[in-house]
Amino acid sequence: MGLSKREIGAVRLATLNDGTRDGRLTVVSPDGNAFAFAPAKTLQEALENWDTVAPDLAAFSDFPEILDPALIMAPLPRAWQWLDGSVYSSHGALMDKVLGIDKPPVSWPLMYQGVSDRFYGPTDDVRMPDEALQIDFEGEFGVIVDAVPMGTAAEDCRKHIRLVVQINDWSLRALAGPEMKSGFGWVQAKPPCTMAPFAVTPDELGDSWRDGRCCADLLVDWNGKRFGAANGEPMAYGFHELVAHAARTRDLVAGTVIGSGTVSNENFREVGSSCIAERRGIEIVDFGAPKTEFMRFGDVVRMKGSLPDGRAPFGAIEAKVVRA
Amino acid sequence: MGLSKREIGAVRLATLNDGTRDGRLTVVSPDGNAFAFAPAKTLQEALENWDTVAPDLAAFSDFPEILDPALIMAPLPRAWQWLDGSVYSSHGALMDKVLGIDKPPVSWPLMYQGVSDRFYGPTDDVRMPDEALQIDFEGEFGVIVDAVPMGTAAEDCRKHIRLVVQINDWSLRALAGPEMKSGFGWVQAKPPCTMAPFAVTPDELGDSWRDGRCCADLLVDWNGKRFGAANGEPMAYGFHELVAHAARTRDLVAGTVIGSGTVSNENFREVGSSCIAERRGIEIVDFGAPKTEFMRFGDVVRMKGSLPDGRAPFGAIEAKVVRA
Repeated sequence: MGLSKREIGAVRLATLNDGTRDGRLTVVSPDGNAFAFAPAKTLQEALENWDTVAPDLAAFSDFPEILDPALIMAPLPRAWQWLDGSVYSSHGALMDKVLGIDKPPVSWPLMYQGVSDRFYGPTDDVRMPDEALQIDFEGEFGVIVDAVPMGTAAEDCRKHIRLVVQINDWSLRALAGPEMKSGFGWVQAKPPCTMAPFAVTPDELGDSWRDGRCCADLLVDWNGKRFGAANGEPMAYGFHELVAHAARTRDLVAGTVIGSGTVSNENFREVGSSCIAERRGIEIVDFGAPKTEFMRFGDVVRMKGSLPDGRAPFGAIEAKVVRA
Repeated sequence: MGLSKREIGAVRLATLNDGTRDGRLTVVSPDGNAFAFAPAKTLQEALENWDTVAPDLAAFSDFPEILDPALIMAPLPRAWQWLDGSVYSSHGALMDKVLGIDKPPVSWPLMYQGVSDRFYGPTDDVRMPDEALQIDFEGEFGVIVDAVPMGTAAEDCRKHIRLVVQINDWSLRALAGPEMKSGFGWVQAKPPCTMAPFAVTPDELGDSWRDGRCCADLLVDWNGKRFGAANGEPMAYGFHELVAHAARTRDLVAGTVIGSGTVSNENFREVGSSCIAERRGIEIVDFGAPKTEFMRFGDVVRMKGSLPDGRAPFGAIEAKVVRA
């Protein structure tokens, strides 16, 4: 809220595959069908020079190139840091139950550091080693910051949130519980994530960006069937608070990505879930045992953040799981 | 062991501060006082093209430039991934005790993902927010790999270990226990690490590189007083096994750094420790309570890996803790 989120205006960015690891940054037209090449070559470069680059990004009104969806990479195809929170209260309690975790409540936003040397593009096949590892999706929203100095207060972190993204944080549930119990957190349980096509400024979300939260419905379809439509609003901590948590003992470099964790609502029996494990948790509560199976090779998950006016600012993830 | 470690020969590499984030790669003379500019500009670039670059690195015999220690950065000033193990058995049990952790034993190498967007140079001041967070050092060895495909077996991971490094994994112990108990692992408890000046090929270690282990004594001095001299050999898992663990469900990009965790020996009462927390654990066992305090601003820790012939292949870390 306030002036800082109004400085740049509504901008949608995409990164196109040009044969390099970081791709080529583009500014996307309001209808999502055309683009112009951005003045910065990569999103990382833009984020490192945001104050000078952003006004140029916002000034585009002519989009001369047709956008080929097959060329769209993750907006940030690799990042120096990816920290993922878990701040939907309705999700946390169920996950502990399904993973067999008995841990004390914490008074801070849960967060782990994940692999960031690669984010899959929205339609990339996702390679997994073994179905027996219990392949799951986790739909969530995230933000990308510019450089945040160590110790920055949460209120001051609002202005460092430059872009909002939509993420599928793939998880291997058979490994997640044992890794949690080790106290060291997740390594094997968390392969690289997938990102939706477009990174957008908070302004692009209009009134659906409220108090550091992306208040969009996250429509999740698994093999063509609606699985969840939870809204992003009820985060126990806003993204600015997640950024401040991350920056308490370290500087954050420009391009650090911070996630919300699986989007979840208290009325999950009505709106559904953003991951299989949560639904299994509900089944354990309701029926004493889980009924929904995890993903199989060949399964497709589609995820699309949807605003009240029907717009999908991030585009859609549509990814197939394949054998590595 | 075997041919793969003999292919390149003994090479020491250093990265010099040229005003860029990744610095300028150099090949260092056997006496450590002179250097030549490497054919690859950065270590990351060399690792991405190791098979073609490494023979050139090994071929240098003329080192025309004087090495100014003040210009030495971490050999890899930032990395796409840093995964730190904890595989010294004598350390693990004590740490659980001092942190108040009661967790089940695990049948795999413990490992967490840490911040990798910055590694401090060997003499950089290290900024910490608060002494009350219980500032500690952790002396360890690490390896840097080239690209490792997902699912690579441990034996095949040996040949991907291209360089060995020495690391101080700074820790904030007041945050470490609570973060472990959350099951999400460490974020705030682990600020960026410091690296010793030289990254070396396994060959540079001669017979002290055995079965994927760096069998050097790690000499640790705290404010000028010897604190530990544990040997790196008794890892429960060799580095090749740590690499395989890391690569089970993800590809590792070239330049991934994998650490051993705090070097520790069973006879720690004789040889000392590589971190304060371990000594405090010993004091808890011996006296019922810890006596050694954590670090203060202005404290200096020096760490130097030492071979039986007296050589220090990695050079020395000598870093002061300062208030952020």
